[in-house]
Amino acid sequence: MRQSFKVFCMSMLAATSLIPLAHADDKDTIDYRQHIMNTLNEQSAALGQILSTAVPDDNAVAHLNAIALTASTALKAFEPKVPGGEARPRVWSDWPDFSKRMNEFAQKTAAAAKTANEQGKDAALSNILDALTCKSCHDVYREEKK
Amino acid sequence: MRQSFKVFCMSMLAATSLIPLAHADDKDTIDYRQHIMNTLNEQSAALGQILSTAVPDDNAVAHLNAIALTASTALKAFEPKVPGGEARPRVWSDWPDFSKRMNEFAQKTAAAAKTANEQGKDAALSNILDALTCKSCHDVYREEKK
Repeated sequence: MRQSFKVFCMSMLAATSLIPLAHADDKDTIDYRQHIMNTLNEQSAALGQILSTAVPDDNAVAHLNAIALTASTALKAFEPKVPGGEARPRVWSDWPDFSKRMNEFAQKTAAAAKTANEQGKDAALSNILDALTCKSCHDVYREEKK
Repeated sequence: MRQSFKVFCMSMLAATSLIPLAHADDKDTIDYRQHIMNTLNEQSAALGQILSTAVPDDNAVAHLNAIALTASTALKAFEPKVPGGEARPRVWSDWPDFSKRMNEFAQKTAAAAKTANEQGKDAALSNILDALTCKSCHDVYREEKK
């Protein structure tokens, strides 16, 4: 966490008022998609704690919205063909399948967030398992590193 | 990350269709607030990469919204008086100041997200430093652990 915060502070110092076109190098590209996938992991874990009744459910709707929002950003972060991190090379060699799954994940979590916003958390949480397809995709496309 | 995912999967298995009242034990309470603060860290780092032009800015608006949404959940996660993790005891002994700062953080990031949604990312990013008060609060209330 310290490293991320340092990167962030340096970034802030380097920031100008408008953002010119960026050119990511490989480490930047990998770091960026890991920030997004780590966000999904943290928010899913928080939601999991709510589902198992380990913690109160006050924030359930916000977690569902944060997951949907972050899911909508994930595919873009994998578009640069830069193997590394925990992504298996087949992310890019099987791109039609990978991108289809990622888009479905974004659509299903968006639908769950919509249900939560319109009908409340209980309605959304009752079938949230359908939306959170993390494991089936990780089994194919992720090589987990300690 | 593996541990969080396991917790999540177990939570899913334990989940019933409706969520009864939860009673958090201390470890659950600390884990939960860390999921939220880690989310803020990951999303701020991703935004920092955009600000430093290390990566393209396609997702900038989504990151601002994710930060605002998560900021809105953070204070609730500290309400149980459970010292531990990286939180200094003065979070609770100085609660009026801590909660004031956390509420201001939520308000300022919500305003930045609103600007991004209404006027676009450049308008929001040009004064985002005002909203991201992470360091000034961490200096007082966080004891960082490796």
